[in-house]
Amino acid sequence: MNGEKVMDKLDDYIDSNVNRFVEDLKRLCRQPSISAQNKGVKECAELLKEMMSEVGIDVKVVPVKNGNPVVFGELKSGKAKQTLGFYNHYDVQPPEPLELWDSPPFKAEIRNGKIYARGVSDNKGNIVARLEAVRAWLDIFGELPVNLKFFIEGEEEIGSPHLEFFVKNNMNLLKADGYVWEGDGVDQQGRPSITLGAKGILYVEFRAKCAKRDIHSSNAPLVPNPAWRLVWLLSMLKGPDEKIKIPGWYDEVIPPTETEIRLLKEAPFNEKASKEELGLKEYLLGLTGVEAQKALRFSPTCNIAGFNAGYSGPGAKTVLPSEAIAKVDFRLVEAQKPDVLFVKLKKYLEENGFGDIELVSLGGYEPAKTPPDNPFAVRIIETAEKVYGTKPVVWPTTAGTSPIYVIRNWMGIPVASGGGVGYPGSKVHAPNENIRIKDYVNSVKYVASLIGSYKTS
Amino acid sequence: MNGEKVMDKLDDYIDSNVNRFVEDLKRLCRQPSISAQNKGVKECAELLKEMMSEVGIDVKVVPVKNGNPVVFGELKSGKAKQTLGFYNHYDVQPPEPLELWDSPPFKAEIRNGKIYARGVSDNKGNIVARLEAVRAWLDIFGELPVNLKFFIEGEEEIGSPHLEFFVKNNMNLLKADGYVWEGDGVDQQGRPSITLGAKGILYVEFRAKCAKRDIHSSNAPLVPNPAWRLVWLLSMLKGPDEKIKIPGWYDEVIPPTETEIRLLKEAPFNEKASKEELGLKEYLLGLTGVEAQKALRFSPTCNIAGFNAGYSGPGAKTVLPSEAIAKVDFRLVEAQKPDVLFVKLKKYLEENGFGDIELVSLGGYEPAKTPPDNPFAVRIIETAEKVYGTKPVVWPTTAGTSPIYVIRNWMGIPVASGGGVGYPGSKVHAPNENIRIKDYVNSVKYVASLIGSYKTS
Repeated sequence: MNGEKVMDKLDDYIDSNVNRFVEDLKRLCRQPSISAQNKGVKECAELLKEMMSEVGIDVKVVPVKNGNPVVFGELKSGKAKQTLGFYNHYDVQPPEPLELWDSPPFKAEIRNGKIYARGVSDNKGNIVARLEAVRAWLDIFGELPVNLKFFIEGEEEIGSPHLEFFVKNNMNLLKADGYVWEGDGVDQQGRPSITLGAKGILYVEFRAKCAKRDIHSSNAPLVPNPAWRLVWLLSMLKGPDEKIKIPGWYDEVIPPTETEIRLLKEAPFNEKASKEELGLKEYLLGLTGVEAQKALRFSPTCNIAGFNAGYSGPGAKTVLPSEAIAKVDFRLVEAQKPDVLFVKLKKYLEENGFGDIELVSLGGYEPAKTPPDNPFAVRIIETAEKVYGTKPVVWPTTAGTSPIYVIRNWMGIPVASGGGVGYPGSKVHAPNENIRIKDYVNSVKYVASLIGSYKTS
Repeated sequence: MNGEKVMDKLDDYIDSNVNRFVEDLKRLCRQPSISAQNKGVKECAELLKEMMSEVGIDVKVVPVKNGNPVVFGELKSGKAKQTLGFYNHYDVQPPEPLELWDSPPFKAEIRNGKIYARGVSDNKGNIVARLEAVRAWLDIFGELPVNLKFFIEGEEEIGSPHLEFFVKNNMNLLKADGYVWEGDGVDQQGRPSITLGAKGILYVEFRAKCAKRDIHSSNAPLVPNPAWRLVWLLSMLKGPDEKIKIPGWYDEVIPPTETEIRLLKEAPFNEKASKEELGLKEYLLGLTGVEAQKALRFSPTCNIAGFNAGYSGPGAKTVLPSEAIAKVDFRLVEAQKPDVLFVKLKKYLEENGFGDIELVSLGGYEPAKTPPDNPFAVRIIETAEKVYGTKPVVWPTTAGTSPIYVIRNWMGIPVASGGGVGYPGSKVHAPNENIRIKDYVNSVKYVASLIGSYKTS
């Protein structure tokens, strides 16, 4: 049977089983799994194990010390030469504020061709779509042309605190030839979007303490002011030209390749609408067009996420504060490393008279990218074009951050996201999170086709 | 009758009438007059009028539009050549937190030779002490050697919002040859303290707004950050050398005179205890001794009283804030003017790319001083030495701010505070505010003696 016939059979099967797919997804969505509130998380891991077993996947719930368990599944095939991995998470964001939901967040109600539930888009829809594609293959052909691994964690929505530890200690278990990450979705025009990388991050807090207590501001000639100290410290990190002044900060930066820039040029971006939505006349430094997109996705940042000191309520209070705090997130690009940069930052502070300021790292992620011409990336892209019948939008990297580096950098495995269930109206992390059933079905077809793209021996 | 005999008579009278003085003070303290909460303020003005009338003072309650009335009293003497003015306020701070009081704040309980009540030190004790001194003079001699004016406002504890307006419109009414301001007190060693001036202030708020809403910090390459804008703005106002960088800021500054510096040298100051109490190893810029005192009382300041932007709670939040606010108070020294400096500040911002930052003045006070060798100051000082039997501590100016400039600068009248009822344990503005009865009695004697220092024609 040739590839086209295989896909026709799969598509027919998928189109005939939509109701069952929807019921399966509702089943998983009805089980709350709110990691931030520790609600239903372990129950969800057990339910997921049950659902994966039913499909025929060899699955176990792996305990994580002081954390939520990982659900790990494997499906081996006698003929397979390669192994395809899926990273997902079964935990969800808190549903609050509940009063803004039109149906209960864990009811998984269907309205107008959409399924409404907390986690349906992020990320349970993608999990079940993958399971359904596997079931389709097994029901029709009895086996798959590729081995599969399912790596499904339960702490993504609280920052994956044990992901690094788990990966470091389970590299053999996790080994694969490529990983599909979480999901993604289609854009306003129905084009599937594919993401090949993410920025890293170093998030730090500066804490300045001077006198033991707040004091009347008439003492300003004698008593050091921690707010001033942080102002001077911060003004040494970055000036209005947006260049980070910490020595050696850019040393490891690898600029984008020509291919990556071409992808940016091909990607849609409604600059006017974005500015209007934010009420901005222009972007920072007057950036526009591809230069703006390049800056967004390929430039390191230094952002004040928070600054607090003294009194900021209405009217005047003449206080000299005793403490000040500032939070700064640095986004990192290939191949900056948060640990290396933290040391450079600390040294810079010490050398410039700010050694007394408490510098705390609140976490770091490495940047990571899979080149667009990597065979796995090409497979992800070509499958999307085939299934969706249109050229996908390929993002060489996002402006945001993701823990893909644990697989991409530490294990050297290509990683990409694509073929996901989302769409621009999915309201991820917000009330009335939903997906369209048609996108869900396309996602099952995408995964089935991706499996079919592998050659057996 | 010579001066000594006059004073002996007065002292005897005062010592014999302590119980009545205490009862009178309790009467005024038992009437709440919390300007911040608009509680009992007008009732207190009426009570005060009644008490002043009983003494024999010609008194009226002068309405203040949209404000609390001024109680104005006058006592003319046929033989007097000069007029002595008293500035006081009959309003008090809120008593909260009530649970920290050992007796109800408006009960005026006596314990261990002290009277406990909100406002007893600040400023009702001084008012009644002055009335008792007048009564003593009238009871014994039937008239005074000096005309008196009592200017008693009801909004001091909320920043005297109508004081400027009232003074501008009542200069004839208020005319006098010298004003005693509020009070003051004795120090740990029982030395009376006298204050001849105050710094001024300019309090401003900087408000930066960028995008319409908070946004994910991954947008930092494109979206301006108002916290950064304020950091850069503030770092342009003052550097770590503590010099204010705004052009012309120091143009009007008049340095302290030799006499003023001598007074500073003579004044007690426990630097070690002050540093220990604040947990400081050293003062700003390593200042110490008279240099520290000079800086405290004679140098302009630029203090960040508040800075708020974004997220400053526990942990990491990757937010790019849409608004930031900073509050800065500038203390001013002779002869800086807040209005002039506000214009210089505004111009500086505009010329340096910060014209879009909203700059709001939250109020200004002029600095004001009465020279230590001014005859009125000399009278205040010499009377203190005579009554307390020890050299007073004379502060040429305070590090803080007071509205004395409306009398000193606008009307050209010398102003000083001294002979007040306070002591270091008075707990002004705090729970268990109190005065010692012995200090109260000394304050009555001080005012009686000050009255007696005037020569008749």
